Parts: sequence; structure tokens; C-alpha cells
Amino acid sequence: MSNEDNITDWFAEQAEAAGGLNNFPIGIGDDMAQVRLTEDASVLVTTDMLLDGSHFDLNTTTIEQAAYKAMSASLSDCAAMATVPMCAVVAVGLPPDFDREKLKELHASIIRAGGAFNCKLIGGDITKWPFDSAQGRQGRLAICATMLSKPSGHHVPVRRSGAKDGDIICVTGSLGGSLAGKHLTFVPRVNEALRLTEITVITAMIDITDGLSTDLNRICTKSGVGALIEAAAIPVSDEGKKVADPLNAALNDGEDFELLFTLSADGYERVCEKWDHETVITKIGQVVAGGEAGRMRIIGYDGQERVLEPGGFDHL
Amino acid sequence: MSNEDNITDWFAEQAEAAGGLNNFPIGIGDDMAQVRLTEDASVLVTTDMLLDGSHFDLNTTTIEQAAYKAMSASLSDCAAMATVPMCAVVAVGLPPDFDREKLKELHASIIRAGGAFNCKLIGGDITKWPFDSAQGRQGRLAICATMLSKPSGHHVPVRRSGAKDGDIICVTGSLGGSLAGKHLTFVPRVNEALRLTEITVITAMIDITDGLSTDLNRICTKSGVGALIEAAAIPVSDEGKKVADPLNAALNDGEDFELLFTLSADGYERVCEKWDHETVITKIGQVVAGGEAGRMRIIGYDGQERVLEPGGFDHL
Repeated sequence: MSNEDNITDWFAEQAEAAGGLNNFPIGIGDDMAQVRLTEDASVLVTTDMLLDGSHFDLNTTTIEQAAYKAMSASLSDCAAMATVPMCAVVAVGLPPDFDREKLKELHASIIRAGGAFNCKLIGGDITKWPFDSAQGRQGRLAICATMLSKPSGHHVPVRRSGAKDGDIICVTGSLGGSLAGKHLTFVPRVNEALRLTEITVITAMIDITDGLSTDLNRICTKSGVGALIEAAAIPVSDEGKKVADPLNAALNDGEDFELLFTLSADGYERVCEKWDHETVITKIGQVVAGGEAGRMRIIGYDGQERVLEPGGFDHL
Repeated sequence: MSNEDNITDWFAEQAEAAGGLNNFPIGIGDDMAQVRLTEDASVLVTTDMLLDGSHFDLNTTTIEQAAYKAMSASLSDCAAMATVPMCAVVAVGLPPDFDREKLKELHASIIRAGGAFNCKLIGGDITKWPFDSAQGRQGRLAICATMLSKPSGHHVPVRRSGAKDGDIICVTGSLGGSLAGKHLTFVPRVNEALRLTEITVITAMIDITDGLSTDLNRICTKSGVGALIEAAAIPVSDEGKKVADPLNAALNDGEDFELLFTLSADGYERVCEKWDHETVITKIGQVVAGGEAGRMRIIGYDGQERVLEPGGFDHL
């Protein structure tokens, strides 16, 4: 378990210990939290802090790309729950030399990225880092996008915790090598997620941000199940194929922003039959019960079955 | 008009030009935005980015105080609209040396600050700044709190734009000198705001973050009215009285996190009669029509009437 998951679990335990979260059907530890407002109205919320030097690097990334990534990462969270993006508020911490033209560029990119999914910018906060002359420290760009979404039609949000023994494990698109460019240009899988839940019941879902191995482990742990996947079945991206160990790239690079989800064998058949979206869906393995929760195994290219450890990126 | 207001107005114009914000009764340019979910359910949202070196300084401020301020600033936005805080998500950008104990300290303070107003922490995001060895830059703590609230009972949220000719202008508490300590320890005026709207109609309200002169100007500009206030009536805090120009401190220091609001003369009488909260409410002037919107005048200690310029803090 990553340091990030470890501390997140601790936070969730604190909330439980403090009496739990009434009116919050989904609390800490999923892609979004859910807030119940009335019997038939709820809203979901996610927040993501993107930092220059960590999630993007303004030495090589444009402001437009950084802002696009910030919005798209939150849209990807909406997709991971199969919910409908509604609106966002974006707070930014600006370097001292960040002028109005740059701010307008950032704003335009936020509007465009959200607009592609009818997600409106409805507020924000703008602050400049001070220049710390004593220590020669100049603050770097921080973009915090917080997004609200709503459940789609009569479907409840898809959680990480619903995977069941025998379920099929699938991914959208291809994995690995995202840092070569895709992490700045990916299209969040909002439409794919909504279409999937139209076709059948998706039992668990997450967007792959920290690597297939880490994010599959999150589904397994939350669902109390294990997983068996096949290396040969994992769709490796063209960029992932260029590196020395493509399988490792697909398992651990992270920032793929593809969907990883589980569904019954029947549901999988229905999806195969009805899928009409250009994004490819690939079966990579199966959920297995027994053993300790979160236990993952992989059948290598050589046909040998081995333990799969979560090995993706850890932000802490 | 401050640079911050100027760019915020530009963003609001962009939203209007793009077809406006349907389902968003309150959009960009107030203390919170409002999202309509169903006929009888809506939620309000605010986001605030607090930066080390700007809103607090970890050389002299504890992590607990910084986190308290982040949550309380958002709670103060809920107060400014007279809405009921529900929940928050908090994203943080951590310095490389920020260890788990510090993170738990930050978390505990967030829980306490929100808990005082039954506002739950329901999610967040944690990322570390990379250490940039080439340039010797070490990222500083950024805390972005995003809060959701709901309208109170049958009252609609109080906006900045409802002040009317002849309305009384009031403030809670006392103003000036906040940087001596109050900006880290203030109690957000959530309960006061809700009690006020129980007693009568508050026509416009804002929390004083950038200074009375700047925040009054925001109400005047949004409401299309002017204001006449009296220096002798402005409640100056003990800290504000210690500086060379106490009136300037009360008008322009900012970060008072007190409420500035307007109400009819009848409403003001009802408040005087029924006010049962220990926080003092003071009448400081009156809304006046005519002339250009946002035109403010002040009667000085010498009895002379002068133009009052917005002179508070500008974050840009």
C-alpha cells in the first residue's frame, strides 16, 4: 500500500471514529465524495492540486497544457465514478512574474477543457506567491481544481468497492509511457464511463493515475477481493512499447487516465455486443476471491504466474 | 477597483458571453457560487488557496494555525452568504520536508475548525513539491480548502448585489490590526449571519477580507449604489488603535473576517431589538443612490465629508 493510501485510510478511520459521515453516502477514499442534499438530489465532489515541477513542468509545458491537465484530471475522477460533470471552481497560486496575459491563457484553457464536457467554471481564487528575496525562493504555479458532478440518470455512482469474485477486469485504451506526452493531452473517459453504465452494471471502477498495479490494488483492497491478470492481455501504448520493459511501463508508469473497471461475465458480454465507442475496451483478467484482500497475481509473458505488487507512483 | 476584481469581472463577462450559467443562480463574482440540482435543492461552493508567505508564514505561524485559517476563511464565505456549512475537501501542496506528523497536525486542525460549525472533511488531495536542486527552490505549503454549504431554511443566499438606497450599513465586531494575530484566530461569523437572516432581510452582505473600503466598494459596485459612512462610527479594534492611523487600519488592513451588510431601516430596528448574540453589531453609515455606482464618501473625525477610495489589499 502506498504512503498516500496509507494516510488516506487513516483519515477515513478518523472520520469513522468521529461518528461517521451522515448525509455523505461516499466519504474519504474513493475518486469522489458524495453529498446528499435531499431524498433525490446529491452532488459529488473531487479536488486535485497540481504543482509545477511535479504534475507538469513549466520549463517544458505550456500554461495551456497545465490548465488542461488540471481540469482533465478532475473530469477523469467524474468518469471514474460514472457521474456527469457539472461545474468547477479553480484556485491558483501564481508565481510573482505571472502576468495577466498568462492568467487569461490559463483561464481560456480551463474553459475549453471543461466545455468539452459541458462543465462550467463557476468560481475560483487567485493569489500570487510572494518573492522571498532572503532565501531566493520564488513560488511555483499551483492549480487546484475542484469539480462537482451528479449521478447519471438512475445509476448510482460506481465505487471502488463493488468488485465481486468472478468479475471480469477491463481497461479502456492503452497503458504506459504517458509521460512522453499523453499525461498532458489525454481525453478524460467521461463519455465511455457513462456509456458503460448505460449498457450494464459496472461493479467497480477507478481511473488509472498512479499505475495499473497500484490502482488495481485499490479496487481489490476496497472490494475485499484478489485479482489475476494476464501480461499478454494488457494493452501497451506505442510509447510504452519503446522502453526497455513495456510491461513495467503499462503496470507502473501511471497518469494513463484510462478507466480500470470490473463487471460480471454477462455484463462483459453485453458490452462486447453493444460497445459503439471508438475507445477500445480490453479484458485483462479476472477478480478472484480467497486469500488476503488486495492480493494480486499476474501471468507473465512466459506463462508463469507471479505475485503482482503495487508499484506505481506515490505522491508522498 | 482592485486588479483582483478587475480580472474577476472579466472572467464573469466571459461566462456571460459564452451563454451564461444556467442552473447556476449565482456565478462568478460573489462569495460563493450556487449550483441548482433540483427545483428545491441547491448547493453553494467556495474555494480558497492559502499560501505560505502570503496568507500565513510558517516561520512564525504553526501548521495548526495555517490550517485553521484555511478552513475559517471558507467558513467566513459561507457566513457572507448566510448559508449553512456542510462539508469541505482540502487539497495541499507540501514542502519536501513535511512529514506525516505535520500532516496529522494539519488534518486535526482542519477537523476541529470545521467541526465547530458541523462542517465535515469529506475528501482531499495530498502532493509534495519536488525539491528543485538546480535552482535551490523548495516549494512552500499551499492549502486549498473548498467548501460546500446550503441555503438556510427558506432564506435565499444573501448576495453582494442587493443593497438599496436608504439601507443601513453595519459591521460585526471591530476592524483593523488583524495581522497582529486575529487573522489566524478569528471565529467565522457563521452563527451571526444565520441569526441576522432569521431576524430580518439582509439586503447585501460580504465578509471583510481585503479591507472595509474595498469590500464596501464591492457591495456598492455590485448593487449599483453609493455609500456614506462615518469615521467616528467605525468600530476600531484594540490592535487597530495602537497604530499611527487607526482609521486607515480599520478601513484598509483587511483580513478582519467580520461581516459587512446592509438592511432596511426597519430591519435595522428589528435587529437592535432582537439581537441576542455577544458579537457587537455597529451601524457605520447608509446606502445612497445617485451619482456613479460604487461612489463612496466618508465623514471624517473632523466632520468633513470626503471621497473614500477602496484602499485595501490586492492579491494580484
